[in-house]
Amino acid sequence: MQAATLHQYDKDMNVQLKLENVPSPTINAPDEVVVRVGAAGLCRTDLHIIEGVWRDTMDPEGSLLPYIMGHENAGWVEDVGSGVKSVKPGDAVICHPLRSCGICLNCRHGEDMYCDNGVFPGLGANGGFAEYFLTTERALIKLNKNVVPVDVAPLADAGITAYRAAKRAAKLLRPGTYCVVLGIGGLGHIALQCLHELCGTRTIAIDRSPHARELAKKYGAHHILDGGPDVIEQVHELTGGGAHVVIDFVGELGVENICWKMVRQGGQYFVVGYGGKIEIPTIHMVINEIQVGGSLVGNFTELVELMELNAEGRVHMQSSQYALSNINSAISDLKAAKMVGRGVIVP
Amino acid sequence: MQAATLHQYDKDMNVQLKLENVPSPTINAPDEVVVRVGAAGLCRTDLHIIEGVWRDTMDPEGSLLPYIMGHENAGWVEDVGSGVKSVKPGDAVICHPLRSCGICLNCRHGEDMYCDNGVFPGLGANGGFAEYFLTTERALIKLNKNVVPVDVAPLADAGITAYRAAKRAAKLLRPGTYCVVLGIGGLGHIALQCLHELCGTRTIAIDRSPHARELAKKYGAHHILDGGPDVIEQVHELTGGGAHVVIDFVGELGVENICWKMVRQGGQYFVVGYGGKIEIPTIHMVINEIQVGGSLVGNFTELVELMELNAEGRVHMQSSQYALSNINSAISDLKAAKMVGRGVIVP
Amino acid sequence: MQAATLHQYDKDMNVQLKLENVPSPTINAPDEVVVRVGAAGLCRTDLHIIEGVWRDTMDPEGSLLPYIMGHENAGWVEDVGSGVKSVKPGDAVICHPLRSCGICLNCRHGEDMYCDNGVFPGLGANGGFAEYFLTTERALIKLNKNVVPVDVAPLADAGITAYRAAKRAAKLLRPGTYCVVLGIGGLGHIALQCLHELCGTRTIAIDRSPHARELAKKYGAHHILDGGPDVIEQVHELTGGGAHVVIDFVGELGVENICWKMVRQGGQYFVVGYGGKIEIPTIHMVINEIQVGGSLVGNFTELVELMELNAEGRVHMQSSQYALSNINSAISDLKAAKMVGRGVIVP
Amino acid sequence: MQAATLHQYDKDMNVQLKLENVPSPTINAPDEVVVRVGAAGLCRTDLHIIEGVWRDTMDPEGSLLPYIMGHENAGWVEDVGSGVKSVKPGDAVICHPLRSCGICLNCRHGEDMYCDNGVFPGLGANGGFAEYFLTTERALIKLNKNVVPVDVAPLADAGITAYRAAKRAAKLLRPGTYCVVLGIGGLGHIALQCLHELCGTRTIAIDRSPHARELAKKYGAHHILDGGPDVIEQVHELTGGGAHVVIDFVGELGVENICWKMVRQGGQYFVVGYGGKIEIPTIHMVINEIQVGGSLVGNFTELVELMELNAEGRVHMQSSQYALSNINSAISDLKAAKMVGRGVIVP
Repeated sequence: MQAATLHQYDKDMNVQLKLENVPSPTINAPDEVVVRVGAAGLCRTDLHIIEGVWRDTMDPEGSLLPYIMGHENAGWVEDVGSGVKSVKPGDAVICHPLRSCGICLNCRHGEDMYCDNGVFPGLGANGGFAEYFLTTERALIKLNKNVVPVDVAPLADAGITAYRAAKRAAKLLRPGTYCVVLGIGGLGHIALQCLHELCGTRTIAIDRSPHARELAKKYGAHHILDGGPDVIEQVHELTGGGAHVVIDFVGELGVENICWKMVRQGGQYFVVGYGGKIEIPTIHMVINEIQVGGSLVGNFTELVELMELNAEGRVHMQSSQYALSNINSAISDLKAAKMVGRGVIVP
Repeated sequence: MQAATLHQYDKDMNVQLKLENVPSPTINAPDEVVVRVGAAGLCRTDLHIIEGVWRDTMDPEGSLLPYIMGHENAGWVEDVGSGVKSVKPGDAVICHPLRSCGICLNCRHGEDMYCDNGVFPGLGANGGFAEYFLTTERALIKLNKNVVPVDVAPLADAGITAYRAAKRAAKLLRPGTYCVVLGIGGLGHIALQCLHELCGTRTIAIDRSPHARELAKKYGAHHILDGGPDVIEQVHELTGGGAHVVIDFVGELGVENICWKMVRQGGQYFVVGYGGKIEIPTIHMVINEIQVGGSLVGNFTELVELMELNAEGRVHMQSSQYALSNINSAISDLKAAKMVGRGVIVP
Repeated sequence: MQAATLHQYDKDMNVQLKLENVPSPTINAPDEVVVRVGAAGLCRTDLHIIEGVWRDTMDPEGSLLPYIMGHENAGWVEDVGSGVKSVKPGDAVICHPLRSCGICLNCRHGEDMYCDNGVFPGLGANGGFAEYFLTTERALIKLNKNVVPVDVAPLADAGITAYRAAKRAAKLLRPGTYCVVLGIGGLGHIALQCLHELCGTRTIAIDRSPHARELAKKYGAHHILDGGPDVIEQVHELTGGGAHVVIDFVGELGVENICWKMVRQGGQYFVVGYGGKIEIPTIHMVINEIQVGGSLVGNFTELVELMELNAEGRVHMQSSQYALSNINSAISDLKAAKMVGRGVIVP
Repeated sequence: MQAATLHQYDKDMNVQLKLENVPSPTINAPDEVVVRVGAAGLCRTDLHIIEGVWRDTMDPEGSLLPYIMGHENAGWVEDVGSGVKSVKPGDAVICHPLRSCGICLNCRHGEDMYCDNGVFPGLGANGGFAEYFLTTERALIKLNKNVVPVDVAPLADAGITAYRAAKRAAKLLRPGTYCVVLGIGGLGHIALQCLHELCGTRTIAIDRSPHARELAKKYGAHHILDGGPDVIEQVHELTGGGAHVVIDFVGELGVENICWKMVRQGGQYFVVGYGGKIEIPTIHMVINEIQVGGSLVGNFTELVELMELNAEGRVHMQSSQYALSNINSAISDLKAAKMVGRGVIVP
């Protein structure tokens, strides 16, 4: 089958994915499933993988190279292992990004992404930028009727990352409160929609890009700011003392030290984007009693919930399609910020 | 009446409180109560007040000086305003440190210490290092039978600060988890006892002082460490991957950047002590999905709960008594770390 | 002033309210407030009060008669006691139905309606079917700009009863779940709107009346059933095993023993209406691990939240106006089910 | 191997289990595990199984007979399927009573006992009153060092049923509250210990049997009542208005309609025992805003937590041993209430 593989990490990102013919995956364990890829989302994390940002954590020796990238996958079941009961060939499915064991205590608590034995296809194991993709039964969710893989693939990772942050925020947000969403891109526009579905808060979307602010408007943000130099004061004035929750999809470039200053006493800052360093005096944390928390990709049940919202037309994903053979153009467009919505690779 | 007043802030802490005769407080509003002071706790925050650490927040002009210090007060009701119904002269009481309005939304949510109209006696208003002390009905809790003011005064602030942190931690801690308590002094020894009462976690007490480690042992810490240079590794090994919660009563001197490294994936770091600056890469926060939160003094209902635990003999406060006339010796002992347990000033 | 007073309880409801001239209320305590009534909602509970249903609980001797009825009040501040700081004459306000003390532990936990010293005007104390109404500062919420008393008065009791049930339900309802709302009248249509704002569940509205089903449709119920004899099976089929939550605004006439049969394993039944008796075998409760809970009028902060949703146009109250002089016609219409939406009495 | 099998249901319980030689179980699927039984608890549910109480739900045709009974099993791993990674032959283990799929949404939420594909050995499938027992990897928890199967087998079902109820209660119980535990037998004495570990409430143990009250005393109940005719009034007086939570391990014989009358406004009644019928007027539920909820056997992670408390010496199980060949004597003793603590069958 045709696949796009990564052969080396490159800090400067001059390297390209190699389009090559490789053997299709086959079933080797009773819980495995081969999925015919319908679409695979392209993610900013893919850029970071190529740059080697994740190398220390996931592949310190570089010994896992080469591998097929692509961790946001949807398609149709092609073949199943002997123990698989919940899906059958032909079923349209979306794939949770982690292959989790279902046995360890983290899995038992439902936090698949903490799985002691987790495998993350597309990062050290073969992913979905290919015609076929190998995963396990525990990763699969059947699509609702009338939902097609190409429309939903990026929900598998970008979508549930935004959903998880929004859901954690929603638990803290009563009617009359304010929630800042900073960065209205592929994740931010999902978070906005999820917040509006999950709670009665008022949203404040912040982005420097006029295009992103358009997106915020389209998805019903209650207030929209352009992230100028006085954004902290603007938020304090608008909210009467600070936002109850701030969700930060940037997490670098100094934004991470603007965000916690927007939070009111007793409030919460969720950081989802990464790259920067948070610096907070402990006296500020104590007097204001604020919380600062990282937020990771969502778990399996969160993907189930997001797929329901999507199937009911409550949460949409903006995307642009690229053929698998054009994947390196897609990567260039993503780097150059020329992509409209999420990029989706179609084999 | 005799009282100990602060006349100027002094960064070097050479200033002493002035013992002088001042008029006793009187009732001027229907909800006010005059308390005959039985005891008033001396707190590390008192040192910070004298140093002027709180000046910018609470008294930027210095115009509130002079005032009587003392914010951990217990005693007997002496006189009540016309609207007071829940206490009467002679009742033994402990005083929540804040005079809160009961009307603003923060009060309505039970978070008295966020009160929009709060007054904090002992910091910009007259406190309890005196024979009589003025507060309001909403601040008062009647003591259970057989409980005397001198045994409980420091619970009013130090106690509920530790209790609140322990209670927030307990909500996150199932049996089989680990909770680090760093700093086993006046607050830490209360937090240990509260954790043992409120949940089934295992506690790890950390302190460099042998005396503090003795205290940890006395109060049943399950593991005790001396906070040496490899403390992070020790905690990771003991816990199999990091503590589920870390409560930090130091919050400065570099401890604040050791603590978050002790936390396991999905875990929580509560910072209660202050003075330092937390510096965390956002990628660490996201990959490990940890939370870092400040924790403030407890609210009124938390003081009620702590008083019940204390009355039932489940939580004890260690203390040393000083006469009001010796308050400056008490302050010297606290500065020199010569005090055993909390200092309690008795008029 | 003119007022509508109840002079005797009457099981058969032949009694009418007496329109008479009585002295206007005056300020007698520092926290009291006189409100010029803009509108007062008429409630099914008013019928029950006249019938004497609440007599045993609230007025066993009948010694509190006569009193002015009306417990859903909104208007403008006319006069304030010496201690009142948060409102001033001329402010438009809505009145939480309970005068709570703010001192007892129930108030401190925010559950004003459990107040140890609560007074409920309109039931044993003078209410708002009059030109002026006496309450206390703690009961008042200032109206947002552009909100007028006549549009919101019934939110003060009917509204927050529905809101509280919906909020408790929303905490249990993830996207993909189902929530039954049974009885789409004055409370049910508010509950539907609140559910849609507070969580991502799917709603199933059930009512025997075609008019009520119209209302359900107008307010966006996802499924609408007519409550026929096979309603339990219909719900099980629609939901694939039972509703996650059922909210019952009837609570009598056998409905109360239909509702718990609609709940799936692990689900919740909230009963808001009353009059009947629930009979459940314990083995059914245990095997299915269902919860059955009463839900009362909301607390003060819940009214604040509902007023925000209302001011933002997210939750509307349907109503019909009657002059105070026509209050007995309004009562007749309510009894005869001829009223469209909630009845609102305007002095 | 030797095994005790049930060949027919009998309402009058004259039937005995048949001791016979049957083939030992063997591995037929990659996730299966054969356990050499160390001990198997005997449970009141076993009596109900023999009586046919569960027949309608679990075996309406009676077509599953005969089968080996016994659903509280602990022992040593004897053999494992090809996919099993977390245990190996020789490991000492306790078995969660349900074989759950790990794939359905209920399993993903951690509620194994709601599993869509669950099998309950000992009730329609072969259980552990035998030398060997077949289960699956997902049901197994390795025992901590120094813990032996015979000491813990009944924790597998009786233990986690009590633990789950206590844990749900503990979430509602602050210091200063009261929790009634009604029925201090095999489950009740575990619930008492768990409550004392999990929260700072005060416990009130109620039992008519002097022996049970002794047990309550041994395990530190704060108050002990004999369940006489004025028990409702006693509880109201002791608690100042009713218990915050009542846990009922009887659930029949009228006890179920005494329990909800002991609950204070805003409180909760958990019913664990079964056989009776709860009858509550809806007006009582609404005015008092009480909740009534069934509580089932605990899930896997709850068993993990309970095993930690047990290994640390915080929760003990009282038991009496019987040889497998004497199982019918054990059943007679249980029926005649002659058994001290839980009965444990040792093959």
